[in-house]
Amino acid sequence: MTSWPDQRILDLFGIDLPIIQAPMAGATTVDMVIATNRAGGLGSLPSAQLNVDGLRQALVEIRGSTKAPVNVNFFSHRSPPIDAASQARWRAMLASYYLEAGLDPAIPAAIAGRAPFDAAFCDVVEEFRPEVVSFHFGLPEQALVQRVKATGAKIISSATTVAEAIWLEANGADAVIAMGFEAGGHRGNFLSDDMTTQVGTMALVPQVVDAVRVPVIAAGGIADGRGVAAALMLGASAVQVGTAYLFCPEARIPDVHRSAIEASRDNSTAITNVFTGRPARGVVNRLMREIGPLSVDAPAFPTAGGALAPIRAKAEAASRDDFTSLWSGQGARLAPRMGAEELTRELYQSAINVLSQKSV
Amino acid sequence: MTSWPDQRILDLFGIDLPIIQAPMAGATTVDMVIATNRAGGLGSLPSAQLNVDGLRQALVEIRGSTKAPVNVNFFSHRSPPIDAASQARWRAMLASYYLEAGLDPAIPAAIAGRAPFDAAFCDVVEEFRPEVVSFHFGLPEQALVQRVKATGAKIISSATTVAEAIWLEANGADAVIAMGFEAGGHRGNFLSDDMTTQVGTMALVPQVVDAVRVPVIAAGGIADGRGVAAALMLGASAVQVGTAYLFCPEARIPDVHRSAIEASRDNSTAITNVFTGRPARGVVNRLMREIGPLSVDAPAFPTAGGALAPIRAKAEAASRDDFTSLWSGQGARLAPRMGAEELTRELYQSAINVLSQKSV
Repeated sequence: MTSWPDQRILDLFGIDLPIIQAPMAGATTVDMVIATNRAGGLGSLPSAQLNVDGLRQALVEIRGSTKAPVNVNFFSHRSPPIDAASQARWRAMLASYYLEAGLDPAIPAAIAGRAPFDAAFCDVVEEFRPEVVSFHFGLPEQALVQRVKATGAKIISSATTVAEAIWLEANGADAVIAMGFEAGGHRGNFLSDDMTTQVGTMALVPQVVDAVRVPVIAAGGIADGRGVAAALMLGASAVQVGTAYLFCPEARIPDVHRSAIEASRDNSTAITNVFTGRPARGVVNRLMREIGPLSVDAPAFPTAGGALAPIRAKAEAASRDDFTSLWSGQGARLAPRMGAEELTRELYQSAINVLSQKSV
Repeated sequence: MTSWPDQRILDLFGIDLPIIQAPMAGATTVDMVIATNRAGGLGSLPSAQLNVDGLRQALVEIRGSTKAPVNVNFFSHRSPPIDAASQARWRAMLASYYLEAGLDPAIPAAIAGRAPFDAAFCDVVEEFRPEVVSFHFGLPEQALVQRVKATGAKIISSATTVAEAIWLEANGADAVIAMGFEAGGHRGNFLSDDMTTQVGTMALVPQVVDAVRVPVIAAGGIADGRGVAAALMLGASAVQVGTAYLFCPEARIPDVHRSAIEASRDNSTAITNVFTGRPARGVVNRLMREIGPLSVDAPAFPTAGGALAPIRAKAEAASRDDFTSLWSGQGARLAPRMGAEELTRELYQSAINVLSQKSV
């Protein structure tokens, strides 16, 4: 096999292909992780919607199926205090949707669970010793970072700006994901909430490469071999790909989400905070159009989603995507449609083909 | 010299290097165009702030200095009707800035002139027969497009979405500029005003390449050889570079603008409509922070700027950039600092170097 011109991430993680399957809370399954690993890429297991037992069970399955390195991903936000006034305002904004769905706007809201990394999760990391541990929204407190490092795991996290990349390197990251504006799902931003100044992948990656010494992983708008090859030119050592894996049979997403990304065009998505309270990119739908895409009234992450659950369930049962978070990046149309193992190989091989065709 | 792996734009325009210096109304000088042409790139003369005599004079100078192909650029917006109510609202919003500057908020506003392409400009095109004519904000009416085509000029224009690229190809464009979200200055959008769904260069270029048959020029966030090489991987045949040329001694920009881009970081810019009425990317400054970056009260393009002229002049005289449009893309920090001729060669040569280093 032709070798990749930048070996730093391959050496750091001990993987064969410079393709990291993005951890997508909810959508990524154990099967997706195993399939990616089988191809020689880095499979990433998201833990934000798992409890400790669920995570342990997933890792037993993965370790039983493959000897390849694995990435376990955690959110590292701080859980916000309960804010009854903010929740009441939010419920009032959603009341008309409840009434339209024939639901009582006063029924108690479910808890929208996104568990941040903590000592109990860290116990599982120490038990299973994943080769890579990735975080989103910065890094956890240093004591936990040091416990993870002591297991021998390499630590990575996402930067949406050069300042965040420098912060991550200074606080223990062994590599940095430069997450461009095009990327789907939650933005990794943690030093600034300003969505008007977020940076596109083409501009972000080389500026991050210039600012840190650790290797850089490019993310955002990369869904085929052309994007993988372009990321290499910008100075990235590897890529993280999310949206393309949503089309795989191994992805677990609602039918309305699958339909939305199948129909998605280059300009079908926007950054919104109305589903969780944090900005994230998804296909524009009714809730985003009517109260977003960015609303100052969305309660703090992750508490916005609980109040949406009843109207979302009703709508999905009627095949409507009005209240479902339809996470997707801007490159959905580029994605090859195949299984996760084949996709991982295809992303690499088509990048090699592009590099060969455009050689000087 | 090593040859560029995609010759389509070079052949179409008759140029040596796949580097198009972006037409930047106000900032681009005749000297910049000539210097770019001398290096073998395509110099682009912006006409939006020239009258017919000014354009003629500039073209006499350019044609007298170089035999190389030249691009003349025009805005193709439709001039809006005079809207006194909108102007009054706008003046009221700015009144406190007038008072702060010791100015009478009731003094008559200057006319903010951005002249769209018309029959008189077309006469000049027929007289000087530039090899390339580029438009921004779509294309002019078909009768004018046909007159331009009859001169033998190749026509290009900017697309910010795939739909705009398809429209441009269908309406006579010989090549399309895929203008990513990262790009500085006015967005080229003309089919949609929705700034929440604008697309990053990494995602836009390959989707445009897949959607049209004409060659594609990548723009947005490209300010060094890495970006040029990345654009090639995405399927672009050439690149258009703006911001990097602003640092050249040939650029004519206010001192406060030069200082702002010198200090600019990856996330220093935002898309704003408060300077002209149309969305454009520039370094965030006081006016953008206080009434923008996007304001529903900004009068229709190009009429927003007139009322800013007095407070802008006062501020600039005191070396403050509060009311100056500080157009810049997100890649300013990447730009090599040198003259326009050397810059054009450097962008190409460093792209070739990156391609060689990352070959498979």
